[in-house]
Amino acid sequence: MLTTVSHSDLVACSAGEVRAAIRSGSYDQHTAGLAAGKLQCNLAILPEKFALDFLRFCQRNPKPCPIVGVSDSGDPFLPTLGQDIDIRSDVSKYRVFRDGTLHDEVTNIADIWADDLVTVALGCSFTFENALLRNGIPVRHIERGLNVPMYRTNIGLVPAGRFGGRMVVTMRPIPEAQVDKAREISRRYPQAHGAPIAVGDPAEIGIKDLAHPDWGDSVEIKSGEVPVYWACGVTPQNVLLDAGLPICITHSPGHMLITDVAEDAETTILRKN
Amino acid sequence: MLTTVSHSDLVACSAGEVRAAIRSGSYDQHTAGLAAGKLQCNLAILPEKFALDFLRFCQRNPKPCPIVGVSDSGDPFLPTLGQDIDIRSDVSKYRVFRDGTLHDEVTNIADIWADDLVTVALGCSFTFENALLRNGIPVRHIERGLNVPMYRTNIGLVPAGRFGGRMVVTMRPIPEAQVDKAREISRRYPQAHGAPIAVGDPAEIGIKDLAHPDWGDSVEIKSGEVPVYWACGVTPQNVLLDAGLPICITHSPGHMLITDVAEDAETTILRKN
Repeated sequence: MLTTVSHSDLVACSAGEVRAAIRSGSYDQHTAGLAAGKLQCNLAILPEKFALDFLRFCQRNPKPCPIVGVSDSGDPFLPTLGQDIDIRSDVSKYRVFRDGTLHDEVTNIADIWADDLVTVALGCSFTFENALLRNGIPVRHIERGLNVPMYRTNIGLVPAGRFGGRMVVTMRPIPEAQVDKAREISRRYPQAHGAPIAVGDPAEIGIKDLAHPDWGDSVEIKSGEVPVYWACGVTPQNVLLDAGLPICITHSPGHMLITDVAEDAETTILRKN
Repeated sequence: MLTTVSHSDLVACSAGEVRAAIRSGSYDQHTAGLAAGKLQCNLAILPEKFALDFLRFCQRNPKPCPIVGVSDSGDPFLPTLGQDIDIRSDVSKYRVFRDGTLHDEVTNIADIWADDLVTVALGCSFTFENALLRNGIPVRHIERGLNVPMYRTNIGLVPAGRFGGRMVVTMRPIPEAQVDKAREISRRYPQAHGAPIAVGDPAEIGIKDLAHPDWGDSVEIKSGEVPVYWACGVTPQNVLLDAGLPICITHSPGHMLITDVAEDAETTILRKN
């Protein structure tokens, strides 16, 4: 029987050590705060037949869908993100969708891996949140140990093939005097949603009530703070769901793929040493 | 009969006006210095059958091959780069390759356009050169009215399908005290080759003799200057040539696609207004 490890057991571990714990089946929890300094990714695995259109869709919507890695068809490895990454086992929890419906939530997809599957890794907000914190900008949901609030908007995406829809955003309350700095810092991370999409009035982007996010937890906006909205990695998940593919696999929310790429690297391609 | 216009006639024109002159057949010269402030692109048009692998190749080699736009299959328009861009007519000179051999050089490809062709637009060095100049860093080949010197290197590319090979770089002599600033400025343009690949000794990246570039013109390196090397858009052209596709169309050197996207925009996706 496998020994189960906890989040705190893994906090000081390297990216490779965390992946090894996940691969062995001894860790199946969320990855926030693990492998500090390394890029974590949203995950989309889909049949090759739809991959060209999905890559076109991501290229046309780079803020919600920043592509950081693409596998060969049928190849479960992602050497540009980490030499030993096996996508069949190295994510702590997966969601399997069939015909646009959640079919299963599992900790290993080796039994359903197929020769025509393509893995697309997309950047995630952990990267710029860490940069905001390093630069003295508070991030409310992290302070409070909550999940970031996420909202559907009326912002149309640029379609490609069967992929399209509207953008999902995250919201972080930022002290008014620090909004410009938050914009400047997050813009440095195009591989992680980049600069905010909007600042201020939620109605302008079609959000009715900030107190009731569509996903995640509501957070307090204090006096002197303004809501700042960033493109969110739930966008491509929704788009994939709506596309109704015969099969599609994503990570479970918060259970990201941990890579060996430094968050501050100029590109998301691991350099050979 | 069409009136022919000169480069100087077009210098003050907008991107759309320059494209209209090219489209009408009245301008077939190089595009350096035209439509100031707008993104110009390297061009690769290839059959859909090879497009997924080519996009994977570009994603894995983002410094020589920064993807800035991808068309739908068979669609000659590129609305994310400019509302009226018709790729069959809007580049001033094209090279048509068949089975890996230069077959023709033409000013219009409407007669060979086909329903399975995909256009991939890649960033070009004009973008960061303009930024260097704006920041007081001299660019020798521009000062002298020459073409930038380009060299084959021993730097291996990350392969995808039939696409692979070695990187081509450009070289610009930079005053030693300004190298860090040049690195910092060009890194801000990931859509245009980003930061330098190497600085200094040409032998370290497999260049035998800086005085004899593989393409372009030799430029003087003055006392106190060091050679600085950036990834070059000739890389994907060579890779496409070596791949021996049945058909492949590129721009002719210096005859770039002019877009409506601002060089300083956060993303290369034109926002609807």
